[in-house]
Amino acid sequence: MNLSHLDFAQLALEALERCHVLARFSEEPDRLTRTFLSPPMRAVHESLASWMRELDMEVRIDAVGNLIGHYPGSSRDAPLFLLGSHVDTVRDAGPYDGILGVTLSLALVKALEGRRLPFAIEAIAFSEEEGVRFGVPFLGSKAVTGQFTPELLKLQDAQGQTVEEAIRAFGLDPAQIPQAAYNPAQVKGFLEFHIEQGPVLEALGYPLGLVEVIVGQSRLEVAFRGQAGHAGTTPMHLRKDALAGAAEWMVLVEREAREEQGLVATVGMITALPGAANVIPGEVRMSLDVRHPYDEVRSLAVANLVTRAQQVAQCRGLELDYRTLYEQAAVPCDPELNGRLALSAQAQGYPVHRMVSGAGHDAMIMSALCPSTLLFLRSPGGLSHHPEESVWPQDVEAALRVGLDFLHRLAAEA
Amino acid sequence: MNLSHLDFAQLALEALERCHVLARFSEEPDRLTRTFLSPPMRAVHESLASWMRELDMEVRIDAVGNLIGHYPGSSRDAPLFLLGSHVDTVRDAGPYDGILGVTLSLALVKALEGRRLPFAIEAIAFSEEEGVRFGVPFLGSKAVTGQFTPELLKLQDAQGQTVEEAIRAFGLDPAQIPQAAYNPAQVKGFLEFHIEQGPVLEALGYPLGLVEVIVGQSRLEVAFRGQAGHAGTTPMHLRKDALAGAAEWMVLVEREAREEQGLVATVGMITALPGAANVIPGEVRMSLDVRHPYDEVRSLAVANLVTRAQQVAQCRGLELDYRTLYEQAAVPCDPELNGRLALSAQAQGYPVHRMVSGAGHDAMIMSALCPSTLLFLRSPGGLSHHPEESVWPQDVEAALRVGLDFLHRLAAEA
Repeated sequence: MNLSHLDFAQLALEALERCHVLARFSEEPDRLTRTFLSPPMRAVHESLASWMRELDMEVRIDAVGNLIGHYPGSSRDAPLFLLGSHVDTVRDAGPYDGILGVTLSLALVKALEGRRLPFAIEAIAFSEEEGVRFGVPFLGSKAVTGQFTPELLKLQDAQGQTVEEAIRAFGLDPAQIPQAAYNPAQVKGFLEFHIEQGPVLEALGYPLGLVEVIVGQSRLEVAFRGQAGHAGTTPMHLRKDALAGAAEWMVLVEREAREEQGLVATVGMITALPGAANVIPGEVRMSLDVRHPYDEVRSLAVANLVTRAQQVAQCRGLELDYRTLYEQAAVPCDPELNGRLALSAQAQGYPVHRMVSGAGHDAMIMSALCPSTLLFLRSPGGLSHHPEESVWPQDVEAALRVGLDFLHRLAAEA
Repeated sequence: MNLSHLDFAQLALEALERCHVLARFSEEPDRLTRTFLSPPMRAVHESLASWMRELDMEVRIDAVGNLIGHYPGSSRDAPLFLLGSHVDTVRDAGPYDGILGVTLSLALVKALEGRRLPFAIEAIAFSEEEGVRFGVPFLGSKAVTGQFTPELLKLQDAQGQTVEEAIRAFGLDPAQIPQAAYNPAQVKGFLEFHIEQGPVLEALGYPLGLVEVIVGQSRLEVAFRGQAGHAGTTPMHLRKDALAGAAEWMVLVEREAREEQGLVATVGMITALPGAANVIPGEVRMSLDVRHPYDEVRSLAVANLVTRAQQVAQCRGLELDYRTLYEQAAVPCDPELNGRLALSAQAQGYPVHRMVSGAGHDAMIMSALCPSTLLFLRSPGGLSHHPEESVWPQDVEAALRVGLDFLHRLAAEA
């Protein structure tokens, strides 16, 4: 199909500009923070709904606050193809994380110029993905995929309001949540556009990344306990310094992660007690985050790092405590969708990097419902969850061209 | 001299029991905290003064609240020999740190049974050594040695009260502080008994330790700065992890300290920012405390550790910041006093370990006034600055026997 008459550069700029329009709707005066069903979410819905209606999409909102625009297919019983991403944010967020995936979905529908495809398109603005307000992420995509369990309604935010109360306060009916779930038989697939939130594409010089797998993740709490003591009066050989042990182990954590292709391991939090300049630390607590595309590799790496910690503790006469706080299996993206996306990228003249996603995304949850995948846009500086996160207009244009080619390719095969 | 009729065991127990009597006088209901000129210090002075008067000592209090008992010598113009330690405490203190040195001084005077020596003895209960209330230690011994500068009067405590106001509130006159200084020509020496506050004597099996030098100390603040990033989406080779760099350096700190005889180096405080389990630390701040009996060795060690930090930072593309917060030169104890103490220990049948003090003590300040030294008593478990700090009665008895022999030896030589 000849798409040369379309001004993709202008469509890309509009998608970006709309991210900035939505970024004005915040819970906080001088920065962007917009959590699940917070008041500014209404203005986001109003803007999105008006943009959807300009494209002759039918607009609805489900019981967890996902805003959905329906673009009909060529027949009434046509299956559905889903696009979208989330419109909630972290605290002090940038304008693109999640939101760009929604405005890009609308740009794609606009690029269809009213042509009907053998499938309907639904563009979903997921109400919750970041887990900021209630500590549990993916409330939106869990409802859409029938994974929203009743216990989630009882979660409380910092003010003591429950999910159920938040839903009612927004004017929605929690009893209708089961009806938010799609029927898998009607859904052909889901494609999410998202900024990479990492430095890989920029480092390699690719505009786009095709996600083959969303990594599995283990999160642990690790503590070394020794003996606090006077920093002046306790000779080195009589110490049980919990921080010296922790340092030795952190060096091993980094080394093991560097030696295993695709493995990342991070100590992000550390507390040394009692925490005085002239006292040898008697206790150190750390977080450990381990991710890898293969669950077996990740499990083995975690077991190795625990063994290393035990060895360090034993050699130094320290006690070791650890517990696993969280385990998430790796989720593969759909190879057929990826194959089509790769062909589209080739056809449109864009190199595309096949990669893993180191972070969870709505596509991870959606894969339980239907074939799902993620197309990443390069993140300058790898910056994300930061007001200065950015994306290049030419990369947005690339995503649009590839996405439109993909929809046509899907239509041609149907 | 035959001292066999004295019940040293009973004198030792009385000295210990008096520590417990004084431990009841606290600013806090359920634990021992007694800072400079706080209200419970009055009760301490009353008890000490009554015990001093039982020994026919003249009692006076100087303008910074040092309580001093004078035991006359055989002549009116006899020189002075000084004993003592401090009666302020850290927060949640044990009963012996400092205080035992005072009750032991009174036990020694009691053991003289009224005999006059060719020197008078003054037992000093220093009002301040720990630096808890005003952040600066040694207020008591600084006055006694003429090192109490007028700026010290302006220091404020957490409630905004100045040293000057605290002195007046206790009924003393800050203008009289210069008169608190001894005339060096009149003072033969100073001997302080103190618990070791470390594990060395216990590990080696010695009851007593003879301090040859009080170590010098350097305190630094060291910071590594890298780049915060997403723990999932940033591959290991694209990270600038400030905590991984800090860990590598902390391993080197411990290794260098272990390799240099007598060196101790401690990282007691560490903060990693932003401090989330799924974020690579972009900044780490640490304290570094380095001590050694030889100032040149300490300076070289600090320079080496800074060089190591620079190397780590350079290899990892991190920035390094460091600054020296505090420098204290090593202070040698008096070899002649130590020689006499060693003879006394030998004469009384006690092995004595010649050692360094890793912490500052009043004797460090007193050495500017007169020949000074410290005799350490073994600290079970190395425990100090802790309500469970302890001392063995037989070690207190050993200190008493050695101390009395020392006084007689000093008298015989006079």
